Amino acid sequence: MSEPKFKIPDSVLSGETADIYFERTREILRKEGLNPEVTMEIFPSHSGILCGIQEVEALLATVLPEKRQVWALSEGDPMERKEVVLRITAHYDSFGLYETAIVGILAHCSGWATAARQCVEAAQGIPIIAFGARHVHPLVAGVMDYSAIVGGCAGCSSIAGAKLAGITASGTMPHALIIIMGDTATATLAFDRHMPGEVPCISLVDTFKDEAEESLIVAEALGGRLNAVRLDTPSERGGVTADLVKEVRARLDLAGFKEVNIFVSGGITPERITHFIENGVPVAGFGVGSYISGAKPIDFTADLHEVEGRPIAKRGRIPGITANPRLKRIM
Amino acid sequence: MSEPKFKIPDSVLSGETADIYFERTREILRKEGLNPEVTMEIFPSHSGILCGIQEVEALLATVLPEKRQVWALSEGDPMERKEVVLRITAHYDSFGLYETAIVGILAHCSGWATAARQCVEAAQGIPIIAFGARHVHPLVAGVMDYSAIVGGCAGCSSIAGAKLAGITASGTMPHALIIIMGDTATATLAFDRHMPGEVPCISLVDTFKDEAEESLIVAEALGGRLNAVRLDTPSERGGVTADLVKEVRARLDLAGFKEVNIFVSGGITPERITHFIENGVPVAGFGVGSYISGAKPIDFTADLHEVEGRPIAKRGRIPGITANPRLKRIM
Amino acid sequence: MSEPKFKIPDSVLSGETADIYFERTREILRKEGLNPEVTMEIFPSHSGILCGIQEVEALLATVLPEKRQVWALSEGDPMERKEVVLRITAHYDSFGLYETAIVGILAHCSGWATAARQCVEAAQGIPIIAFGARHVHPLVAGVMDYSAIVGGCAGCSSIAGAKLAGITASGTMPHALIIIMGDTATATLAFDRHMPGEVPCISLVDTFKDEAEESLIVAEALGGRLNAVRLDTPSERGGVTADLVKEVRARLDLAGFKEVNIFVSGGITPERITHFIENGVPVAGFGVGSYISGAKPIDFTADLHEVEGRPIAKRGRIPGITANPRLKRIM
Amino acid sequence: MSEPKFKIPDSVLSGETADIYFERTREILRKEGLNPEVTMEIFPSHSGILCGIQEVEALLATVLPEKRQVWALSEGDPMERKEVVLRITAHYDSFGLYETAIVGILAHCSGWATAARQCVEAAQGIPIIAFGARHVHPLVAGVMDYSAIVGGCAGCSSIAGAKLAGITASGTMPHALIIIMGDTATATLAFDRHMPGEVPCISLVDTFKDEAEESLIVAEALGGRLNAVRLDTPSERGGVTADLVKEVRARLDLAGFKEVNIFVSGGITPERITHFIENGVPVAGFGVGSYISGAKPIDFTADLHEVEGRPIAKRGRIPGITANPRLKRIM
Amino acid sequence: MSEPKFKIPDSVLSGETADIYFERTREILRKEGLNPEVTMEIFPSHSGILCGIQEVEALLATVLPEKRQVWALSEGDPMERKEVVLRITAHYDSFGLYETAIVGILAHCSGWATAARQCVEAAQGIPIIAFGARHVHPLVAGVMDYSAIVGGCAGCSSIAGAKLAGITASGTMPHALIIIMGDTATATLAFDRHMPGEVPCISLVDTFKDEAEESLIVAEALGGRLNAVRLDTPSERGGVTADLVKEVRARLDLAGFKEVNIFVSGGITPERITHFIENGVPVAGFGVGSYISGAKPIDFTADLHEVEGRPIAKRGRIPGITANPRLKRIM
Amino acid sequence: MSEPKFKIPDSVLSGETADIYFERTREILRKEGLNPEVTMEIFPSHSGILCGIQEVEALLATVLPEKRQVWALSEGDPMERKEVVLRITAHYDSFGLYETAIVGILAHCSGWATAARQCVEAAQGIPIIAFGARHVHPLVAGVMDYSAIVGGCAGCSSIAGAKLAGITASGTMPHALIIIMGDTATATLAFDRHMPGEVPCISLVDTFKDEAEESLIVAEALGGRLNAVRLDTPSERGGVTADLVKEVRARLDLAGFKEVNIFVSGGITPERITHFIENGVPVAGFGVGSYISGAKPIDFTADLHEVEGRPIAKRGRIPGITANPRLKRIM
Repeated sequence: MSEPKFKIPDSVLSGETADIYFERTREILRKEGLNPEVTMEIFPSHSGILCGIQEVEALLATVLPEKRQVWALSEGDPMERKEVVLRITAHYDSFGLYETAIVGILAHCSGWATAARQCVEAAQGIPIIAFGARHVHPLVAGVMDYSAIVGGCAGCSSIAGAKLAGITASGTMPHALIIIMGDTATATLAFDRHMPGEVPCISLVDTFKDEAEESLIVAEALGGRLNAVRLDTPSERGGVTADLVKEVRARLDLAGFKEVNIFVSGGITPERITHFIENGVPVAGFGVGSYISGAKPIDFTADLHEVEGRPIAKRGRIPGITANPRLKRIM
Repeated sequence: MSEPKFKIPDSVLSGETADIYFERTREILRKEGLNPEVTMEIFPSHSGILCGIQEVEALLATVLPEKRQVWALSEGDPMERKEVVLRITAHYDSFGLYETAIVGILAHCSGWATAARQCVEAAQGIPIIAFGARHVHPLVAGVMDYSAIVGGCAGCSSIAGAKLAGITASGTMPHALIIIMGDTATATLAFDRHMPGEVPCISLVDTFKDEAEESLIVAEALGGRLNAVRLDTPSERGGVTADLVKEVRARLDLAGFKEVNIFVSGGITPERITHFIENGVPVAGFGVGSYISGAKPIDFTADLHEVEGRPIAKRGRIPGITANPRLKRIM
Repeated sequence: MSEPKFKIPDSVLSGETADIYFERTREILRKEGLNPEVTMEIFPSHSGILCGIQEVEALLATVLPEKRQVWALSEGDPMERKEVVLRITAHYDSFGLYETAIVGILAHCSGWATAARQCVEAAQGIPIIAFGARHVHPLVAGVMDYSAIVGGCAGCSSIAGAKLAGITASGTMPHALIIIMGDTATATLAFDRHMPGEVPCISLVDTFKDEAEESLIVAEALGGRLNAVRLDTPSERGGVTADLVKEVRARLDLAGFKEVNIFVSGGITPERITHFIENGVPVAGFGVGSYISGAKPIDFTADLHEVEGRPIAKRGRIPGITANPRLKRIM
Repeated sequence: MSEPKFKIPDSVLSGETADIYFERTREILRKEGLNPEVTMEIFPSHSGILCGIQEVEALLATVLPEKRQVWALSEGDPMERKEVVLRITAHYDSFGLYETAIVGILAHCSGWATAARQCVEAAQGIPIIAFGARHVHPLVAGVMDYSAIVGGCAGCSSIAGAKLAGITASGTMPHALIIIMGDTATATLAFDRHMPGEVPCISLVDTFKDEAEESLIVAEALGGRLNAVRLDTPSERGGVTADLVKEVRARLDLAGFKEVNIFVSGGITPERITHFIENGVPVAGFGVGSYISGAKPIDFTADLHEVEGRPIAKRGRIPGITANPRLKRIM
Repeated sequence: MSEPKFKIPDSVLSGETADIYFERTREILRKEGLNPEVTMEIFPSHSGILCGIQEVEALLATVLPEKRQVWALSEGDPMERKEVVLRITAHYDSFGLYETAIVGILAHCSGWATAARQCVEAAQGIPIIAFGARHVHPLVAGVMDYSAIVGGCAGCSSIAGAKLAGITASGTMPHALIIIMGDTATATLAFDRHMPGEVPCISLVDTFKDEAEESLIVAEALGGRLNAVRLDTPSERGGVTADLVKEVRARLDLAGFKEVNIFVSGGITPERITHFIENGVPVAGFGVGSYISGAKPIDFTADLHEVEGRPIAKRGRIPGITANPRLKRIM
Repeated sequence: MSEPKFKIPDSVLSGETADIYFERTREILRKEGLNPEVTMEIFPSHSGILCGIQEVEALLATVLPEKRQVWALSEGDPMERKEVVLRITAHYDSFGLYETAIVGILAHCSGWATAARQCVEAAQGIPIIAFGARHVHPLVAGVMDYSAIVGGCAGCSSIAGAKLAGITASGTMPHALIIIMGDTATATLAFDRHMPGEVPCISLVDTFKDEAEESLIVAEALGGRLNAVRLDTPSERGGVTADLVKEVRARLDLAGFKEVNIFVSGGITPERITHFIENGVPVAGFGVGSYISGAKPIDFTADLHEVEGRPIAKRGRIPGITANPRLKRIM
């Protein structure tokens, strides 16, 4: 994946997205004439996959003065609970206001990337596609999908996320297309007719008929041009079971469609992925939605550990620089 | 709270934040010359507090043609699992692309508002302040805090959220101010000196000393001008316990500072609020962070139920308009 | 239901089905010249519904001499744990050999009747049909279904059971009929054509197609002559869910088939019946299989409490007649 | 054990024990003139020990025409969940009516055999005797005990079961004998006097006195002719504990009766057997009752997989022959 | 019960049983010339029954100077978690050394009394006899049994405990007497012969024979002079069950010994007492051993709350006198 | 540790602490003229560490006649459930009265020693000091601490316990000293001034201020003479956490006080010790209170197994001498 280019929006740079007490702190310290050089250390409350550090770097590059030192782990690195992942030394006035944004970016993105990684590890090589844009506010749909890619997903559904990650978005067809066209085979033929060759033809086969029956109808209608079917059975119909996938596979094979793949989506979690894997279910890819997009953020804490070179810390923390040989200087 | 004015960003209007299959569907249907009038119904996967509907209304007002009908519940309404909260009748081409954004806004905002409501109900009248901006990506810090206000919070920490909700942001002081000024009393005196009269003087009393000792030192330093202390004891020191608040209260009272209030923050959840309430702990307000900001989105589903006036639905759903007398026509 | 006539098979009367030590005991006592008048009391290890007592009565009537007293509760009576349900006073040689058969009949039949009663109570008036003949040895298929009727079932699937209970057996159609005829509508039309008028036309609608789709196809093919559909979705397809029944109901209603009922079968238990009832699911009847037919027998114990009029008992039991005013003299 | 000879009763051959819909299906298909050659496959819902297949073979040998193929696993074979254990290819009219009986025999017998096997494996070589005839209907007492022998039991108590299995039934003496004779030693002496030499003299020692006391009294009365004692302490007296057996063993040894064995019965399960084994309790044999006889049947399913040579199957199953190299052709 | 007279042993008065740091503190304060008047408050860590306060009062009466105030709850009072049960105001040197003894007496005695009360409440009027002297060091056997009486027990087994409580000790006979005399009836006759009339004749009936058998033998041997039997079946024989007591009762009644009572002992807990009560078991008294004698002490804490009249307290406690209107001045 | 000298108090020798039925038994047997030689065996109900056997030996040496044999395990030996740990052969009249005291001493002392051993094993070499004298009656404070030393504790707080164990008692300073002197540093300086050189100077640092702050203040005030600090944070302040110890360590190190050790006390259990060890927390010693002193006694049973050389035993036990090669003859 190519290098993302994060642009920091004005609402962040203006301090509007900050906790108000940082704005007040800036005002008080300015009136007191205080602007010491400080060292801030940032660490997570749980272990996981670090994500968002590139966007934070873009923010820091914008606001920090020339005299600064920034040390960090890299995008996608594993991190331990309480491990320092970012250390900033600079005059406080230049970046104190952005503490809310810095820890917020890391919290949200690392939460998503960590959940994605859990799915990827469970899948043992079978690709995971992030399908969760529909469960988050559109302002973060892109950065959520980007984080999922950092966590190891092979693709994502949102155009914005794919752009950030430097890949092409993935997608089959929504139920709406089939309902409007009135029939799954008709809709799939239209898809095949109008989409460019590089878009794989994957049909969604649970809209009107039994999945196995529909799979055969579509495969026959498309001839050799059907790449895959996607099973997305709703919970009202029992969801997608291991037995269902095996049966669809067997019926496709019996009818001579061995080359048609099967994708599975709908309520997928690492536990269910493991269940499919352990039962030897022939899945070509999993679409994962809210397990990734609804992952709880991993809270980060920012602490001052030095002021003008003197070790200091609040109660509960240890004064002075915390050694972490994994950190690399990035600025 | 005044009426928020939501502005839909270009990235949403352009379809960039959409799942790519909606863009492809638009292209296919246009090439097929299909643009039927359809009715889409949207419902949540769990019960809770509906939030985000005003932002969705702003989006629909921008994109829908004159010929349309939109029915909805109102911002902040309670909603049942699977209850239809929004029904749109219009030509599909005008809004199909925005399905991802519509359900994403509702999912994320309703998740936050519902979690806020749980805290508010547990607190039985004691105000809840949303402090969670630091745990979400800054692009949604404002809309998260706005949702918390919709859920019943009395205030929030981010400037952006307060602006959306038409109130003033709340905040005391961060540990950084105290660490830089070297002493809690000194920092609180500076706060009192430079902040306008309408900002209440609330001191954070767990930075360097025992909370009870620090409370008395600050109260004495400020004389009658200290409004409250905030206890935010880190988990490394056992967190804020019911006994601690009672003791600080008793020691303040013994020293004649009966008018100084006590705010509590740090890992607050509805269960912990209930524990404080049941033990008669004298808390003036709770600051709640990740319980609200890290709430799991409440997934919403959008289904077509009519095409050109004919009832239709995918398997697992019931064709035709779903009766819901609570819906009001908003467009 | 009419009075069953139980015929005791030769294998029972010859003592072949007995535990061998009862045969040996008969031989020893005869050689010792002992044949006292004894009183035997029989009680269950758990509470439940008493069943099998009519068959036991038929056995006793065959083997007991004129000089005898038999007291018992009635077929279908509720019984408490350790309550005496049968008391026999007669010379031991006449019936000692049949202890195995007597307690075996009561154990097996009461187990089935008790499980049936649990379903019936959960269903709150909706009829329960016993479908479990296929899970027991055919030698007891009839007596199992008879016991289910004693427990409150409205019907049963085996011809033998129905005969014992004096009713007509119930049944729709097996998957085999549909598979052989190749199509559900075709099979249902044949059923309608060849079955006499008093057999209700109930179609099994999960063989080849989605249940809702198939229900509409069959209802249309049969015109007004379809009495009901039966949903029996296999676990590989998620089983029959509450939502599925509601949807089939709605789709039948939308198409004008309000008079077509819905029967549900497949893994039905009292818990699942309660779940359907509590969710207001419009079910016309439940088919229950292994919950009834696989019910654990309720073990019964037979103890001698008097020998030649003297109270006696083994350790752990109380000598002499155990008072139970609910017992009626039947012989 | 010798080869059992199963005789199929008329009530089965006449179809009386069948589900009525199979009788109706036969009538409909005959009226439609349909009698295709079909392939039926039968598989269990859980893993276990296959039993009943010899009786099913006897049934099929009676009813199938010359043109048929039958493949099966053998009596007593282990089987996996969903593994095909029986495959029949023949014209449907010849055997369709017997589906209820076929799966019923396999379900009930395999349930018993599997429970027996669990006891046998727990006992690590110590013999298990099936004592459960008293908990089932006498019509199946024999086939139940036969199934227990197939599962690995060393003996059974019913004469009918022993006959089917080609062995001699096992048994000690019932409490009734002792109560009638008034004294355990007297009863045991009578037993010894009248029983032929090949019946081992085993006394039941919990009727009137403490088990240890009674064991010594009987051993002394019988001199060297006592083979064993059986402990069957009722739950009202705490059941048989590991410590009790050890003490009886020690007291017999102290009195010089080292050759007298100890049998244990009463509420025995695999867990309790394991407990005895792990505590090194010197047990010569376990009598197991309702754990085996009350075992839940293992439900079997019969599916058509071919009609006139064409692969077919209902939803949830895979059309065509299911490969299973373990099957052997038996007809 | 009469008023106990506690005598404080020299080892306590000399400070030998104290924690050494109190001895060191006395030395340091004396060398510093410090001996302020202080107020100490003492409270328990759990709710329960206060016991030991009379012994503590005896200690304080011995060591405190004339100028002192002591407030306390009374022996046997219920107390809440953290409720002040004792407040001492006096010069520190006079009593500081005894803090270990004061809280130790209250902790151990209140633990025993509280456990006794739980049994008494479960028994709903049936007398409880404390039998636990054999599970504690003999130095505290008396004070343990005294505490059990304070908690509500009707009697105790140790002579020392009975003396402290002003009652007569209770007891039947040990197994040793029966084993030495060789027979339960013989031993009971000897007991009856040599014990004065006011000692009730209660026989222990589980030594050599079945309890029911032995009860009848002893009752017949004693004629009308047997007061009761005690069942103490060891766990190796399943312990005393509800059914056993009912059976012994029935057999005694059948034999005309309605006036012979039944006492139960062996592993008795409040839960088992409740089980007997709920099953209507005719028990005349329960002997309770290790549930009472092995009760965990209820830890007490002693805190200084005033020094020379000034409120003070360590962190975690509230300075100054803690109001408790239930306290009465006792010195 | 040197050899303890146990003196048996008159209240034990007089039989006052005995269960009254042993006194009565003595009287009855004397009046019957019975005083056989008997063998008594004593065994525990659970495995653990044997303690109290030396005190029992002192008692037996006082009361047994010349003609006797006593076999036993040694003080501190591990013992199995039901293993004979003491066997006495002598005329019954000489020692029967002391059964209550013998099993009581073993029960209480072994309970304490076993709990101590669990802490010692968890601590993997870090010393454990018994601090629980304040939770038991002062009459057993010494023997409790002695038992803790037998179990492996490195020290104890009571003077009496240390004397029994032949060591010097351990202790730091109580909160009372600090509260009276008004300040932790002042109190620690006084301690240092007045205590002899061999008493290590350990300061209790949680009385008035944050533990880390106070540790630094005291260390600075004492210069190089501070041996250690003790953390004993009350539960109202979250107790002592692993993070707290690490932070205090770090702050002491930063300030140059690497030689000052840290002791931890307050609610310590084996589980919490393991937690500290697993997290690499630098603790120099643990003070354990109620986990040891409130340990449940391990009940012991005393059974007669021979009378005048004849094997005998009550039901549930095995007559005759129980072989145990680990026993050594001690008298």
